[in-house]
Parts: sequence; structure tokens; C-alpha cells
Amino acid sequence: MNDLATPPTNPYAAGAAYVRGRFVPMEEAVIPVTDWGFTRSDVVYDVVHVHRGAFFRLRDHLDRFQRAMDRRRLKPAEDRAALETALHRCVALTGLQDAYVAMACLRGRPRVAGSRRPADCENHLIAYALPWIDVLPQDVQARGAHLWIAGTPRVPDASVDPTVKNYQWNDLTSGLFEAHDHGFDTAVLCDGEGFVTEGPGFNVFVVKDGKVLTPDRGSLQGITRLAVLDLCAELGIPASVAPVPRRLLEEEADEVFVTSTAGGVMPVTRVGGHILGNDRPGPVSVRLRDAYWRAHDDDRYRTPVRALTQVV
Amino acid sequence: MNDLATPPTNPYAAGAAYVRGRFVPMEEAVIPVTDWGFTRSDVVYDVVHVHRGAFFRLRDHLDRFQRAMDRRRLKPAEDRAALETALHRCVALTGLQDAYVAMACLRGRPRVAGSRRPADCENHLIAYALPWIDVLPQDVQARGAHLWIAGTPRVPDASVDPTVKNYQWNDLTSGLFEAHDHGFDTAVLCDGEGFVTEGPGFNVFVVKDGKVLTPDRGSLQGITRLAVLDLCAELGIPASVAPVPRRLLEEEADEVFVTSTAGGVMPVTRVGGHILGNDRPGPVSVRLRDAYWRAHDDDRYRTPVRALTQVV
Repeated sequence: MNDLATPPTNPYAAGAAYVRGRFVPMEEAVIPVTDWGFTRSDVVYDVVHVHRGAFFRLRDHLDRFQRAMDRRRLKPAEDRAALETALHRCVALTGLQDAYVAMACLRGRPRVAGSRRPADCENHLIAYALPWIDVLPQDVQARGAHLWIAGTPRVPDASVDPTVKNYQWNDLTSGLFEAHDHGFDTAVLCDGEGFVTEGPGFNVFVVKDGKVLTPDRGSLQGITRLAVLDLCAELGIPASVAPVPRRLLEEEADEVFVTSTAGGVMPVTRVGGHILGNDRPGPVSVRLRDAYWRAHDDDRYRTPVRALTQVV
Repeated sequence: MNDLATPPTNPYAAGAAYVRGRFVPMEEAVIPVTDWGFTRSDVVYDVVHVHRGAFFRLRDHLDRFQRAMDRRRLKPAEDRAALETALHRCVALTGLQDAYVAMACLRGRPRVAGSRRPADCENHLIAYALPWIDVLPQDVQARGAHLWIAGTPRVPDASVDPTVKNYQWNDLTSGLFEAHDHGFDTAVLCDGEGFVTEGPGFNVFVVKDGKVLTPDRGSLQGITRLAVLDLCAELGIPASVAPVPRRLLEEEADEVFVTSTAGGVMPVTRVGGHILGNDRPGPVSVRLRDAYWRAHDDDRYRTPVRALTQVV
């Protein structure tokens, strides 16, 4: 990546975006206030990260994004190769070695004036690369996150499919309000039946008697979650995707951690009033966190960011 | 309104917007792709209409919008008087006598770089006036709408408060896909318990044995819905807000109509396979529709749009 000159005047230093087929500095990346991606939140998205000059598990992210677009009948002008090129170019323009890279497909606006039919809209793709953002601040990750179990129930899977990554965060935002009001870092939501789902931007894991568990419902099929499940298999740690009753998270867990592309594997040391493992990150969580970052050197998962000369 | 000169070159003819404290032609009304109003759909909105140069029930809309902002802890820089002035000015700039006028308050972006806390964000207001849009085309309104009862359940009130007008339309959009796939005009959703809620952009009413009924749950407290309830009281038509079982809508109703600011009172002639009233708009629906439009001349509800010279 050393061929990417980033003089202090690089207009893309704060981020680069691809919008309506053009590459622009981040502050020019805008959408109309009448785009249905906004006025109906009719949009799917994905976030992949770049670590030391390489995307991590890019193929998995692109697969998931394509599935999400298919599920919502969204079809942008760009094919997968063009999207991938746009992602590379956004990162290369910034010159960043570590980046948060987002892609979204929006419903757009009707081609037919006045139409209220989604099928009449011109779908469009946006993408952008920003300096790395963690879902939880680094100091919180170091001491272990304090997790609040929200009273707001997660939207049911039958109403909004949580495996289709979406921006409809009202229930999650309500959970965040509750968490912050109680002095906690973030929140996790349960569904209407009292099973644990996910939090704003992350999946949840419980460690109990040496076994690792993550919810089978109400949750995104996170790529970091997948990475953890893969690592458990490699490290010989028993892991399963199963119903997680609230009680297991709140009272019975030996360890808890959360996972997100924006932060990786992040230990939790408090769940509501319950203090875990003497208020310090647990051994299984730390082992998986370390293994997760080591996996970034694994060629199976790395996609080096192409130089600008390759993605013009 | 004759003092509003609208030469053919009026740059606001296609719409005028208020964004970040400035009035701009509609095509310049944009938001950043990183605004949480988009990336978390963390935004509330309202829509009022202008009919023959006057807002209809503007105070009711502003009251509801304020309640919605309070419920989501959104606080823009503008107070109510400033918002009202912005709405007047947007309409006046367009020169339109009939307009669709929207207002929204967005979470914005964090003042503190990297923060993931809603309380750290700078909330902001947008508003815009567009040429009139109906939620259903005029020809559909004339023949009576064909309504599909969707299989997708409405998001529960406990997860996302439907009385706080929001853009989180995934369940409604899924319902629209179902309706269009089956050749219907639009959809209505039931909740998880089988009670009727609302459709994409409208409330639903059932007429049975001379009584008018509208759901008490899963629904926006629509201003057109309120107008209909007021008119029922004035006209001596018994009306109530109560649970509406799916069966009542699907099999037992004498008449059905839907209501929206974007269209008013709109008769329905088919619900799924069921044809109502010989496939023609019913007498109570038509009587209420006519009374609704007559109410636009009532000074209790009219707020004439201020001339440009008054809202500079």
C-alpha cells in the first residue's frame, strides 16, 4: 500500500464515497431527502473492515449483501465486480490502512412521477470508506463492556427479517436510551418471548461451562459471529447457535462477549447488576479475541486493497 | 395568494425545501449518507397538506410532530414558530395552491467524533413542499381501492411506537410487495394477534351496521382519521376506536375506507377476494369523503399560507 501517496492535502483523507457512479470526498456523499431509502428506510447495507491494508472476509460480506438485496428486491446498476472495484477504490482514495467500509443499496425514487410502487423505483448503490470506527470505545473494550438488558422487545423476525441488514434501529435506539440512562455502555434486546437477540450493531455470545452459545433468532448473521464460530471449531471449543433465554445471559453465564465488524470480539464484564469473572474479561473471550485478530493474517480471509492504479 | 408571482422560471416550482437553516430548490435538498436519520432511521416526521392556499389542521400536525420529537428525545435548533414559518415559506416559494408539505427531525451526527451515543448528536430539522401527491392514484380512488390483507405482521407497538410517525416501513413495504404480486392496489397489515392495524401511509376504517370503526392499535393516530371521527360526531354517525379483528375487515364489513393526509377519505371496494357493495364506493364512505373536503372551507381548520413578504 506504500504506493498510495497521501499528502496532507488529500481531499479524501476524511473518507471517500461512491454515489451515483461518482467518487467524491465524504462531505459530498449525500442522498435526496425524498429517496425512499430514507423516507421508507427501504435500504439494505453491509459493513466490512480493512485491517492493515486488507479487507477481512470480503467475500462473506459481499455474499450477505447480495442476499439482502435479493430479499428486498433491490437491484442496482452495478454488478458484483463493479461494487467490489468501488469498495477498493474508496479505500485506496483515502490512503487508509485501517478503515470502516460501508455499502448500501437504496430503493431510490420512482421513475414514474407520483408512483407509490417500489417496483417503479430506480435502485442505486452507495459505498464509502471512513477511518476505523469501533462500536464500543477502546477503553470500554479494555475494561469490558457493561451491558444493559433492555425492556424494549426486539422487532419480531416475521415483521422485519433481522438477517437482512437494515437501518431500522428504533427498537435498538430505545434500548440504547435505557442503557445510557442507567449508566451502561450499551444494550442487548430480548424478543417478545424473553429470548436474547442482539444489540445495536453487534451479536451476543454467552460462555457457560466451557461452551460458547449465540442466539439463533432476532439477530443478524454477523460475519464476526461467523468468524468466532469458525475459530471455536479450529480451537476445539464447543459452540452452538441456539435459543438463549434471558436468564442464561443475566444470571448464569460464566462469560459474555459481543461481536461486530466495528470492533471484533469485545468482552463484557457486567450484565445489568451482575458482575462477571471478578469484573475482568474472561479467558475464553480473550482467547477468541486474540485468535480473531490473528486470523487477519490468514490468506483465506485477506483481500489486499488494490492500488489506485489498478482501480481507476 | 395572487401576490405570489410564479413565472415559469421559478426554481422552486418542483418543490422548495428548508435544510440546515437554508431554503433551497428541491433538488438541492439532501442529507449526508452518514446522518443517523438515515443510517439508524433515527428520525420522526409529519406530513400536512395545503388545499386551495391553506394548510388543513396545521395545529394538529404540529402538535403530533412535537410529541413525536419528545418521545424520541429529538430537539432541533428551531422552535415551533420557526418551524411554522419555514413551512409557510416553503409553500410560498413554490407558488403552489395544493401541496404536500413534509417536516422531519433527524438525529444528525455526533458532535463528538466516533461517539455512538444518540445524546451526542446534533439534531436537525428539514421541511419541504411538493406538488400534491395522493397515496392512491385518482382513478383508483374513483373506482374504489382493492386492498390486500398482508401475511407480514405489523411490528408490535411495544417495539416501535406506531403513534410516533416514522420511516421504518419494512413491514409495510413487504405488505405492498404482497399486494402488488396479487394484483391489488395496496395492503393492510394485521398484528401478531390477528387484529387489523394500518397500511403504508393510511389508516383503515370499517363500516358495519351503520357504525364506523377504526383500529385502536398498531396504527398512527392519523389527522385524517381524527377528522373523520370529528365528522362522524357532527353528522351523528356512531364511531369508535376499538380492536378490529381481521374477520370483520375481510368478511363482515358493509363498507371499508382508508384515510391519509395524502388523499383524504378513500373508499375501498375489494378486500382480498371479497367484493364490497356491488364493487362501488359505499354510501357512508362517500358521505364522509364529501364532508371531509367540505371541512377544508371551515375556518376552524384552515391556516392560509402566508405571502412570501410575510415570511422572509
